[in-house]
Amino acid sequence: MLNKLFSLLKMNQNQKEHYKQRIFDTIFEANTPKGKLFDICLLFLILISVGLVVLESVPTINARYHTILITLEWILTILFTIEYILRIISVKNPIRYIFSFYGIIDLLSILPFYIALVFPAGKFLANIRILRLLRVFRIFGLTRFTHGKNVLVLGLKESRDKIVVFLSFIILIVVVIGSVMYMIERNHPESGFTSIPISIYWAVVTLTTVGYGDVAPVTGFGQFLASVVMVIGYGIIAVPTGIVSMEINKASNSKEQIPHNTEVCPNCGDDYHLDGSKYCKTCGNELNPRYY
Amino acid sequence: MLNKLFSLLKMNQNQKEHYKQRIFDTIFEANTPKGKLFDICLLFLILISVGLVVLESVPTINARYHTILITLEWILTILFTIEYILRIISVKNPIRYIFSFYGIIDLLSILPFYIALVFPAGKFLANIRILRLLRVFRIFGLTRFTHGKNVLVLGLKESRDKIVVFLSFIILIVVVIGSVMYMIERNHPESGFTSIPISIYWAVVTLTTVGYGDVAPVTGFGQFLASVVMVIGYGIIAVPTGIVSMEINKASNSKEQIPHNTEVCPNCGDDYHLDGSKYCKTCGNELNPRYY
Amino acid sequence: MLNKLFSLLKMNQNQKEHYKQRIFDTIFEANTPKGKLFDICLLFLILISVGLVVLESVPTINARYHTILITLEWILTILFTIEYILRIISVKNPIRYIFSFYGIIDLLSILPFYIALVFPAGKFLANIRILRLLRVFRIFGLTRFTHGKNVLVLGLKESRDKIVVFLSFIILIVVVIGSVMYMIERNHPESGFTSIPISIYWAVVTLTTVGYGDVAPVTGFGQFLASVVMVIGYGIIAVPTGIVSMEINKASNSKEQIPHNTEVCPNCGDDYHLDGSKYCKTCGNELNPRYY
Amino acid sequence: MLNKLFSLLKMNQNQKEHYKQRIFDTIFEANTPKGKLFDICLLFLILISVGLVVLESVPTINARYHTILITLEWILTILFTIEYILRIISVKNPIRYIFSFYGIIDLLSILPFYIALVFPAGKFLANIRILRLLRVFRIFGLTRFTHGKNVLVLGLKESRDKIVVFLSFIILIVVVIGSVMYMIERNHPESGFTSIPISIYWAVVTLTTVGYGDVAPVTGFGQFLASVVMVIGYGIIAVPTGIVSMEINKASNSKEQIPHNTEVCPNCGDDYHLDGSKYCKTCGNELNPRYY
Repeated sequence: MLNKLFSLLKMNQNQKEHYKQRIFDTIFEANTPKGKLFDICLLFLILISVGLVVLESVPTINARYHTILITLEWILTILFTIEYILRIISVKNPIRYIFSFYGIIDLLSILPFYIALVFPAGKFLANIRILRLLRVFRIFGLTRFTHGKNVLVLGLKESRDKIVVFLSFIILIVVVIGSVMYMIERNHPESGFTSIPISIYWAVVTLTTVGYGDVAPVTGFGQFLASVVMVIGYGIIAVPTGIVSMEINKASNSKEQIPHNTEVCPNCGDDYHLDGSKYCKTCGNELNPRYY
Repeated sequence: MLNKLFSLLKMNQNQKEHYKQRIFDTIFEANTPKGKLFDICLLFLILISVGLVVLESVPTINARYHTILITLEWILTILFTIEYILRIISVKNPIRYIFSFYGIIDLLSILPFYIALVFPAGKFLANIRILRLLRVFRIFGLTRFTHGKNVLVLGLKESRDKIVVFLSFIILIVVVIGSVMYMIERNHPESGFTSIPISIYWAVVTLTTVGYGDVAPVTGFGQFLASVVMVIGYGIIAVPTGIVSMEINKASNSKEQIPHNTEVCPNCGDDYHLDGSKYCKTCGNELNPRYY
Repeated sequence: MLNKLFSLLKMNQNQKEHYKQRIFDTIFEANTPKGKLFDICLLFLILISVGLVVLESVPTINARYHTILITLEWILTILFTIEYILRIISVKNPIRYIFSFYGIIDLLSILPFYIALVFPAGKFLANIRILRLLRVFRIFGLTRFTHGKNVLVLGLKESRDKIVVFLSFIILIVVVIGSVMYMIERNHPESGFTSIPISIYWAVVTLTTVGYGDVAPVTGFGQFLASVVMVIGYGIIAVPTGIVSMEINKASNSKEQIPHNTEVCPNCGDDYHLDGSKYCKTCGNELNPRYY
Repeated sequence: MLNKLFSLLKMNQNQKEHYKQRIFDTIFEANTPKGKLFDICLLFLILISVGLVVLESVPTINARYHTILITLEWILTILFTIEYILRIISVKNPIRYIFSFYGIIDLLSILPFYIALVFPAGKFLANIRILRLLRVFRIFGLTRFTHGKNVLVLGLKESRDKIVVFLSFIILIVVVIGSVMYMIERNHPESGFTSIPISIYWAVVTLTTVGYGDVAPVTGFGQFLASVVMVIGYGIIAVPTGIVSMEINKASNSKEQIPHNTEVCPNCGDDYHLDGSKYCKTCGNELNPRYY
């Protein structure tokens, strides 16, 4: 792979374009056989690297297998770095890719390693590597496997407006309830209501029915008010459920499931186009539907 | 702004009426350009002042930035006081406004400050200022942004009857369960069931699946009964969800979304009228739909 | 009232029957003006007496107001006793009433008081009086107010079969999960998994998302399994919601809301008959629909 | 029963086949009178044996009634062993049965007892016997009682695809949230976020609204992020509910409830066939629908 990269540097323009296209087809496309293989390999590497970060955080495991974990981390980071460089080379508009969502994720998943190499003090950044996991979404976005997901995403998208209104309503309620509870319980520090932000945190923990119990009212009136909040929350929990249920129902009933393909724009990397699209819907660049 | 107020006092009746109308249009109306700007400024000021109350309650922040917080609080309270006075002046029926829901909220959000100034002992009332947050609802009520909310509100309104029956049923259940658990666990003070009210609090915490764990059964029979309560609560949680789902569905399906505008009554300040209303639905005063 | 009772004893058969009928109409019927008044008074007395039991259980309140609470309790118990005797006298078939659900509740709500009077050791039974609260259901069952409830009750009734299957499924799952967790966590007594029943209790607390935290896994494998249980429970919680939603929807859509009245059988006291019923559906006794 | 077994060994081929058939009809079939009786007896024995395992785990009960529990356990294990042997003898294809799901469960529910007899060290395996409970599912699978369940199972099956997508999405979210919280709270060991796996466990406990409180954020930023996670989880909980609701609705509406009987294949023991099936859908063996 490194050989290919070096030979790429010595080639003439035409050959370069040819190789760029072939790399692009492998890395970005999901419908070519090579693209599929590449995606599956990448998926495994990402999951392994995430597993490494997780295992490294367990003191007992890290103490025993430190060398193995570090070595594997080295190998994976180098592989991801090569992949990142190939992506920049093969895309027509590298700046656009670098500052796209996945471009930043790709960078964040290799950068902390090199920073920690130069500045040992930057070691605490190492866990940012876990963001590699978000790259999994790209792979799944590229496969046709996600038909079931589309109904979900559509359902959520349709109910976004109502959910925003609902959430801002929840925030208002939670701030008011938190402040009132703080006024009631502030003289009982054992209750944990030591400031309004903590009380708001309690209100969220209670309204969502999580209920850790690290903050809990101890006065009779506080407990009465908390009970009222819970019973109301009980009714409130029904609202988003009702909205999402309705939207999923609608999305599932609607016959007009918009058909789309996973054709990737060679310029900006956008991978969600309507069937038969000739130009990228994001940057206007021509798509190359040779493989269809 | 204060200049305007003073010049207002020296003017003749006709000029006064003109200025009153202009102030009214700015403060109460949401459809005029000035009204929109005023609402956005007010929204920011309210959110900042709520932020101040929240930050003040955090001991470490209050210790460090006490002077800044107090100064900002002074400025905001004076601005809100001016706004309150202008509202009283410009409305045709000030008594009606003062004793309306938002009139009381407006007063409560500035009064504690002045009380604490005169009686330092009244300082503990300062947190009532958090009720300023409720004024946000007025601003949102004045914009057409809340289309999504209407379906919610309609859905909740429609299911109010059933929710009332459901809640009174829950209260009955919770009192009976709480009393029974108190009888079982009363001899084990480490369980926390020290009185029937506390046991009812436990029953609410459990039935709503919040589950703090500050009160929890320790006897075998108590734990068995608690398990039964939980499993039943599991089925009960489905009831309000089902009701609200159904009502949201109905409200969303019904074509007859009643169209309304945000025209504000210059007499009482009511701001929810049907399109084409000529007279206020609350006090009968003529509306002035000049701006449409 | 006591006067009426005594004079009743001295009257001839015909007069007796007449008074019995009048008492019956007042106590059992809900549609006569007297019946309505009686029901509202009874409702208040029941709520006050339940409040007394609740307040008595709070140590600080009981210490201060013991005499008042006891005196009120005396008065209320005597009133309930008179009501109980009048019910037995006025009903045609007293045995049937005494052993009916509400007959037993009526007895249980006065008996503990007299037992504690004779055997002071029976004082711990006093809290059974809280069952008086169940009498509230009778009053609500007699009013036409409960139209909204009927949809609920119908919805629950329709889905009873599915809920039974669901609950037995939950019990099986909970026993298996509890036993497996006990095997994993038994060597870590600080986790609280000290026996299989406690582990089953934990499984119920977790699956219903109550989550007290008094019993919680401490081993890595235990926590992993608990996570799996929770995520599965997440999906399971959707099942009863779905069922009840569907049934409420059906019950609400069906036009054939069976009309019924609150005519009470003078023999057995059953109060749920179809409109136009001439004979009690439970004991076959003739109903007297004079008041319609 | 043992007599029958011994006489079976001495009979000629024809007689053997006849007895095998009769045993098969009793043990495997659920529609013959003998089969029904056998199933009910087996159900009781299983529930008793599960009760024994549960009671044995309670230290106080085990200390007092150890001898009784052990004796009953002996008797039940021997009965289950006889049943297991009869099942192997009467089925045409014993290998298939032994390695089927229920075959393994049947073995696991008797094996630990004999292992503990030979190797006392294997006593800790004794609790595997609790898996006997899973045999209850076979009995219920054989009765027509489970009509209500079918709608459930169909509903769950239909929404399996979407639930898989949803669960993998949850896993991704939970790993990312857990890692981020670990980075924030790692310097506060009292919070309990000691490694990424524990933090993922916390994320699951929080997102599912279980909320034990054994791991809970203590820093301000951690609590803010936890609040965001909870509020989002609040919206997410609506998704599976919506999906399952929809599918239950569909399954309940669809008229084409596939009719099936409980005819058991005499070769492999599969017991779920379409009405009128002549050959086993799993192994192709001829079914014998004599009893219909």
